[in-house]
Amino acid sequence: MSGHVIALCGGVGGAKLAFGLTRILPPDDLTLVVNTGDDFVHMGLHVSPDIDTVAYTLSDLADRERGWGLAGETWTFMDQVKRLGGEGWFNLGDRDLAMHVERTRRLAERETLSEITAALTSALGIRHAVVPMSDDPVRTIVQTADGELAFQRYFVGKQCRPVATGVRFDGATAARPSPALQGALARRDVAAVIVCPSNPYLSIDPILAVPGVRAGLKALNAPVVAVSPIVGGRALKGPAAKLMLELGAEPSVTAIVCHYRGLLSGLVVDGEDADEAEALRTLGLPTLATGAVMRSDDDRIRLARETLAFAFELEPRTQRRAS
Amino acid sequence: MSGHVIALCGGVGGAKLAFGLTRILPPDDLTLVVNTGDDFVHMGLHVSPDIDTVAYTLSDLADRERGWGLAGETWTFMDQVKRLGGEGWFNLGDRDLAMHVERTRRLAERETLSEITAALTSALGIRHAVVPMSDDPVRTIVQTADGELAFQRYFVGKQCRPVATGVRFDGATAARPSPALQGALARRDVAAVIVCPSNPYLSIDPILAVPGVRAGLKALNAPVVAVSPIVGGRALKGPAAKLMLELGAEPSVTAIVCHYRGLLSGLVVDGEDADEAEALRTLGLPTLATGAVMRSDDDRIRLARETLAFAFELEPRTQRRAS
Repeated sequence: MSGHVIALCGGVGGAKLAFGLTRILPPDDLTLVVNTGDDFVHMGLHVSPDIDTVAYTLSDLADRERGWGLAGETWTFMDQVKRLGGEGWFNLGDRDLAMHVERTRRLAERETLSEITAALTSALGIRHAVVPMSDDPVRTIVQTADGELAFQRYFVGKQCRPVATGVRFDGATAARPSPALQGALARRDVAAVIVCPSNPYLSIDPILAVPGVRAGLKALNAPVVAVSPIVGGRALKGPAAKLMLELGAEPSVTAIVCHYRGLLSGLVVDGEDADEAEALRTLGLPTLATGAVMRSDDDRIRLARETLAFAFELEPRTQRRAS
Repeated sequence: MSGHVIALCGGVGGAKLAFGLTRILPPDDLTLVVNTGDDFVHMGLHVSPDIDTVAYTLSDLADRERGWGLAGETWTFMDQVKRLGGEGWFNLGDRDLAMHVERTRRLAERETLSEITAALTSALGIRHAVVPMSDDPVRTIVQTADGELAFQRYFVGKQCRPVATGVRFDGATAARPSPALQGALARRDVAAVIVCPSNPYLSIDPILAVPGVRAGLKALNAPVVAVSPIVGGRALKGPAAKLMLELGAEPSVTAIVCHYRGLLSGLVVDGEDADEAEALRTLGLPTLATGAVMRSDDDRIRLARETLAFAFELEPRTQRRAS
């Protein structure tokens, strides 16, 4: 099988599968499209949490124990910020800060987020294309009973405690896909689109909300395969299951299918959800049940390999419908 | 003796005497005017080296062994900046970074450097007024045979190696004294002006270059006393002696008097220069020879006390002339 692969991803879970994909596919054969709806300006610095999580994971600099940030991180800066009476609710590690300071400096010098991301990931030794979904600002807002919360205020500041009533993406209607995403969508050799096991509401929906992306993916004539971030009714990490419940869906792999309705050609689930996968197959959606919990590099690479093999054997949804 | 004291200072040497002054004078009785000609924007961050040196020294957070920066500093940020291919020539410690990030954020929110300095020094527990010479940008430029160098490029980047042919202060003609400096110059109760043992060319001249400051100090009708940064023909720290030679003066306490001509009512020198001090007295300038090398807190406090006592007994230069 040859051809290009587009993968959509957000934070930690998605980055793990992205790691696996980069260990299988040559650099020219993969475009990793990363959510920037979580981006925000903190203490004057432009923070792109999902881009950084992907960059740190791919360069193997990520802290595997803590689950976020960099290994060997120190916290001297934050200690002093608190002493100075600055904002202490969002932790910026000393090593992590280099990314934000460099990004902010370059943005001020009119480089685009795409250019900056390419330069910084390259400096970290990453040879695959890590591209922001857009160079225009899109900001995820979580709507709650107590009012709207900017994403990081919800996610970090309030640790996802408020009950969500909806999610919206500020700026999305005016945003354009990044040049590299536009380029990927214009390719005639896309062999598969992989939706990584990221939070559907908070990591993948912002990407799909950028005008032209959802339609562009469907028009590729390539299979679109999601790896479920829900295993056995629970989210492997983060608030996906809680959000699903609050927004009216029972957390399950079927709910993932419903969420991505009209887009998926197939779904990869964990063996724990094999029965549900079987039922989905009966209903007409190809599924693969395998080990979908990535604890080791081997897990990441194996799941990526199985997901690609599964996708490459599928027909695109559009073809399936037409047949 | 009662009355207000204005002290002019720059980096490390000046900050040591400032420390001594704050241990003697109540907060209301002292205005510390700090050079901002060294300020520069590095990696998008506004760095005010002399303000920070004074702040760290007064709050006793300064590293006494290294002679600059903070005690217990870590360097994780710089390590990662270098990995990212960023600018590595100017070291920013992790703890130190908090000051620059907070300052930059507040400047972007239209706070003045004076307001920010007051807030940050207060957060560090400093009760005396530490005030920038100006809220307007003044940038020290060292002229060399190889062209002009921004101060930090000369001082840190090239470690003062180029031969200087002159020094100029970009922006000085358009700058106004900071509100607190204007306020101090308008007081009727100023009992003394102390010129700390800072580099005359690089730390004190920028302050005196702000329109109205030199004339304002002379108009105060208060004695102006400098503590010599030259001891035995050598600079205690930094390039003062080298600069003097390059700019045509033999490094000596007499050269300090010549440099500040028209301003001084008296000079404090080290015992090593007692003979030269005696000669200057004969020529009509009051001098005090004492231990002017500050190795300990006791040295700082003793020198501050002796300098104040010496100054308080002098007549202002203007009065002396008139008499």
